Amino acid sequence: MTLRCIALDAMGTDAAPLPEIEGAIHAARAGYARVLLVGDEGKLRREIARHASRDLPIEVVHASEVITMEDAAAKSFRRKRDSSMRVAARLVRDGKADGMISAGNTGAVMTTAKIVLGPLEGVDRPALAAVFPTSRGRAAVMLDVGANVDCKPRHLEQFAVMGEIYYRVIFNASRPRVGLLSNGEEEHKGNDLTREAYGLLKQLPLDFVGYVEGRDLYNGRVEVVVADGFIGNVALKISEGLIEAISSLLKEALSATLSSKVGYVLSRKAFQNFKKRVDYSEYGGAPLLGVRGVCMICHGRSNANAIKNAIRAAAEFSAGRVNEKIESELSAAALSRAST
Amino acid sequence: MTLRCIALDAMGTDAAPLPEIEGAIHAARAGYARVLLVGDEGKLRREIARHASRDLPIEVVHASEVITMEDAAAKSFRRKRDSSMRVAARLVRDGKADGMISAGNTGAVMTTAKIVLGPLEGVDRPALAAVFPTSRGRAAVMLDVGANVDCKPRHLEQFAVMGEIYYRVIFNASRPRVGLLSNGEEEHKGNDLTREAYGLLKQLPLDFVGYVEGRDLYNGRVEVVVADGFIGNVALKISEGLIEAISSLLKEALSATLSSKVGYVLSRKAFQNFKKRVDYSEYGGAPLLGVRGVCMICHGRSNANAIKNAIRAAAEFSAGRVNEKIESELSAAALSRAST
Repeated sequence: MTLRCIALDAMGTDAAPLPEIEGAIHAARAGYARVLLVGDEGKLRREIARHASRDLPIEVVHASEVITMEDAAAKSFRRKRDSSMRVAARLVRDGKADGMISAGNTGAVMTTAKIVLGPLEGVDRPALAAVFPTSRGRAAVMLDVGANVDCKPRHLEQFAVMGEIYYRVIFNASRPRVGLLSNGEEEHKGNDLTREAYGLLKQLPLDFVGYVEGRDLYNGRVEVVVADGFIGNVALKISEGLIEAISSLLKEALSATLSSKVGYVLSRKAFQNFKKRVDYSEYGGAPLLGVRGVCMICHGRSNANAIKNAIRAAAEFSAGRVNEKIESELSAAALSRAST
Repeated sequence: MTLRCIALDAMGTDAAPLPEIEGAIHAARAGYARVLLVGDEGKLRREIARHASRDLPIEVVHASEVITMEDAAAKSFRRKRDSSMRVAARLVRDGKADGMISAGNTGAVMTTAKIVLGPLEGVDRPALAAVFPTSRGRAAVMLDVGANVDCKPRHLEQFAVMGEIYYRVIFNASRPRVGLLSNGEEEHKGNDLTREAYGLLKQLPLDFVGYVEGRDLYNGRVEVVVADGFIGNVALKISEGLIEAISSLLKEALSATLSSKVGYVLSRKAFQNFKKRVDYSEYGGAPLLGVRGVCMICHGRSNANAIKNAIRAAAEFSAGRVNEKIESELSAAALSRAST
């Protein structure tokens, strides 16, 4: 298999460009992909020279502007035509890269990818998919986690198809189970949107188990969780907030007495293993499903490990022909609907 | 102050009637309230005789039927006219008790309370409010967590008024901050529902801080979180699921090696303190705000401690005149809207 080429916005993380450069070096060394680092050329070349030998498959592509967290997505897209994320997107559109990755302003990355790359055939709304761990040791994926706030039932149907294919390819699963996030398991539960979407999902040729509840996100009952972007985003951020709160409460409790401090020291390795299992950075970034090419969006706080894993995931996404499968299965679903 | 009287559905918890009886005894001993235990009279009298002396302020009221978790809410309300939760509600409606508590089928308790007790003046939709801990050591309250799945903006406005008053009275706070749960902090975020509700909440005479994100639930940024019942329910259950998943992963990690096992033994007390701080049962039940009288709904897995705390919260709810305040503030809000 030929090495995939990934365009990496080098100016995205809070600590840019270091995590990007280190992540690119690790990924290139591991043979995951060829990496085009996009950003201020002089700065990037200096940093790379400090960290890596010349024979790694890493190139620098210059971009003169950076979109910040304060920039509004639509405005910054119009005004900063030479931003690092837009140059990365253009490399994909023009066939010079197979996929793009950015840890910058999520709204701006989504706007850029949707406009520059454009949607796949049959996709009304690209969706952001987040990967997270479950207590069964398997990963699960939830979508949409923030690209589309007010959704129609047919959007949720497309999310189900896209998420299922993504999970199948990336996690090498033959028939992942798909659930629709709701306030109860019974079919009469849900709101107006989910009740109508339920009927559509039932007719798809995938393993739809029906409604799942908030508690099912982490118990591994399904591999793919479908939700509109408003509730998906709230769900994801609740989890992040709760993990932070639990960590700080636990740290406080463990440093309260001498015996608990000693206990902590003895079990530190266990905590590190535990933290690694709930660490989102192990899964790299969140793919924006439904655009041409590949677009992975990483957290602004991503470290080199998260960037490295995102590069691997983007390369696998491209090699696994996720987009071709999405287009053909959406077209099959539309045909089967037309014939009934 | 006269002792409040609380009607307790004794057949609600998964282990009924034991947690109810023990909780009632603890609450009565602590002087929180007089308790009317509602359920199978013979059974209850036998159990009480085993556990308590005769001079506690506990009485038994007979009810011949029990609503189970399998019963559909509306159907069971029509068919089981002598169910323990319905008899408890009638005691409140007829002025024989100040409030009712049930740990039974949540949907059935809500239906029963809404129909038998009826809504307060100015309230379109009663809302279920959940109390949970934050990392700042303060409690926060979120509503609605499941009574109303498809909401209008004016319902969210009423939830804000009711939740703020409840928090003020029960947690003795002079000016709790109120936030509207959304997918981002900026005013242009949110979905169609929250954007319209935002305008209404801004005009209320309370400390509305605007949108809050999922991560703000547990960091203590606000004391009152307003959401529609669909998203509130999902949010609550995600938290429960994640806490369970983290506990089991942590337990696994801590028993993996000898040193981590020893570490766990040394820090066990710290874990117990920690668990107590994230334990929902410390806050008793969830009040159904907006009905006449008081209705607290407890988790089916409630233990005696949770029941005891629910009895205390119900008595404080009644003594604090929460309902009078809700009616007068909603009427003031309606007047001020009419005059502009």
